[in-house]
Amino acid sequence: MYREQIKVLDCTIRDGGLINKHDFDEKFVREVYKAVAQSGVDYMEIGYKNSRELFSSGEYGAWKFCDDEHIKRISDGVESNVKISVMVDIGRVNMDQIKPADQSPVDMIRCAAYVKDVDKVIAMANHFQEKGYETTINLMAVSRDRGPELDEALHQIEEEAKADVLYLVDSFGYFYQEQIEDLVKKYKAIAKSKEIGFHGHNNQQLAFSNTIEAIIHGANYLDATIYGIGQAAGNCPLELLVGFLKNPKFDVRPVLDVISKQFVPLREKIEWGYLIPYAIAGMMNEHPRAAMALREGEHKDDYREFYESIVDSGYGGK
Amino acid sequence: MYREQIKVLDCTIRDGGLINKHDFDEKFVREVYKAVAQSGVDYMEIGYKNSRELFSSGEYGAWKFCDDEHIKRISDGVESNVKISVMVDIGRVNMDQIKPADQSPVDMIRCAAYVKDVDKVIAMANHFQEKGYETTINLMAVSRDRGPELDEALHQIEEEAKADVLYLVDSFGYFYQEQIEDLVKKYKAIAKSKEIGFHGHNNQQLAFSNTIEAIIHGANYLDATIYGIGQAAGNCPLELLVGFLKNPKFDVRPVLDVISKQFVPLREKIEWGYLIPYAIAGMMNEHPRAAMALREGEHKDDYREFYESIVDSGYGGK
Repeated sequence: MYREQIKVLDCTIRDGGLINKHDFDEKFVREVYKAVAQSGVDYMEIGYKNSRELFSSGEYGAWKFCDDEHIKRISDGVESNVKISVMVDIGRVNMDQIKPADQSPVDMIRCAAYVKDVDKVIAMANHFQEKGYETTINLMAVSRDRGPELDEALHQIEEEAKADVLYLVDSFGYFYQEQIEDLVKKYKAIAKSKEIGFHGHNNQQLAFSNTIEAIIHGANYLDATIYGIGQAAGNCPLELLVGFLKNPKFDVRPVLDVISKQFVPLREKIEWGYLIPYAIAGMMNEHPRAAMALREGEHKDDYREFYESIVDSGYGGK
Repeated sequence: MYREQIKVLDCTIRDGGLINKHDFDEKFVREVYKAVAQSGVDYMEIGYKNSRELFSSGEYGAWKFCDDEHIKRISDGVESNVKISVMVDIGRVNMDQIKPADQSPVDMIRCAAYVKDVDKVIAMANHFQEKGYETTINLMAVSRDRGPELDEALHQIEEEAKADVLYLVDSFGYFYQEQIEDLVKKYKAIAKSKEIGFHGHNNQQLAFSNTIEAIIHGANYLDATIYGIGQAAGNCPLELLVGFLKNPKFDVRPVLDVISKQFVPLREKIEWGYLIPYAIAGMMNEHPRAAMALREGEHKDDYREFYESIVDSGYGGK
């Protein structure tokens, strides 16, 4: 499907970093950067911009903080048109420490928040937009917040936020295509001045098809990760998305190459992707944290018992 | 999604048998049968009905032939409403050796063929329908045959075939939801008197979403396999489909149980599911045989080279 406005954002290192405390070594990140650049992908999200006052530098790797010098070290000398993105969460970043865009290797700052924090995320995104960054607002976990509070948040974003892009985020890998159609249409109808983005999770093997559905209904910013890496079930696989898009600038071969050389060996060491506990969490519209805890314990393959435990907990809200 | 007419067909042993020459032991097949029965699934397809004159009994397991006594041994004594299905291919079955339905443990015979063999498959399906079986016609690989030959075949099936169900089959895991919508609508418009079925392959992680899309547009016969087992990338995972359907007769827990106990260990021994060479074959609308050969050789993770080799072969038809 060819639509010139479509932008692909690779968030391999950012979402993948949630599995390994953002501790990818520089050689690995540089190989990913090269592959992303060569494949014609528009943005690479390299990590979170967190305050070092809140998180220990000893406990987390470089991509929890994304210092300018780290970003420069993985990108210097690589021929590239890729823009660099970082993600920020409400209350975890010291905004005053972020330099203006013209003094930074970062091009885009993506601001993530739950619907209830819409005021905070608008203020944060406006702050960064005024510093010269491209900004997005990523409303997380909306599968749990589809009442009037969602409509209100969307109206408020349209009226008050300077952000370029508003993302629909399927945090729990819960949605299927009819719900994506409905939501993308709603986002576009209310947030008329914004581009719409989509970020899926792959709990039920629906991240790629939901991304296609979002494209069909007009979303132009599309998140994906190499070999689907990401927290728990992971994300929409970049290789499938790039293989699907018809824009001549995209080339799937560099992505295939880096999967062979870097991601197949990595998958032997750390786990992500389709696993039954994550599928159960997705069906139940649940955060995968209980499933992730199960996979780290002794009973990691006791699926029926895990299912019953989720049902017994009243889907987390009885 | 609840629609009373929906029937789920588990083809774990039949499609899974393509990986191991149909050599599942009876205990394993009995465990699958129990799980399928307890989960409320409507049909279990247990293998192929092939002529022993054409295939060596030494080379292939029991489920290449599906003798009545084998079927009885895995089902006897299990409380069950599951109907038993077998698949037949053009030219591989001695039709005269198949007893009438009232003398057989088999309820349904599914007749698979390419579009070019539509005359043969109609004759075969009519033969079995006259013997008292439920029958289906499964037109394979239609992603390669979507010209006027497909319309003609569909008209001919509507006019001449006694089969109850006509299956749309995405043999190469090539389709995405817009194509499924288009084809299900076409099948229903032409084959007005038939129920429509869907059988997907999971090369691009689209088997489940394509099955949902087929449901949305009125397909009532849905194929799936436990843990997505099947040739190459496998099929729509039964656990996801049963988790999605709202019909109260379905229960996902027995499927989860048999995955824990039987399929997790089996997946350590034989390979199926999402792997890059199968994804490439799917994108290219190719039979997975080259990808399967790659996975059995020394260069099984040389994805870029495999991609180039498929491009160089002109998608198999230059």
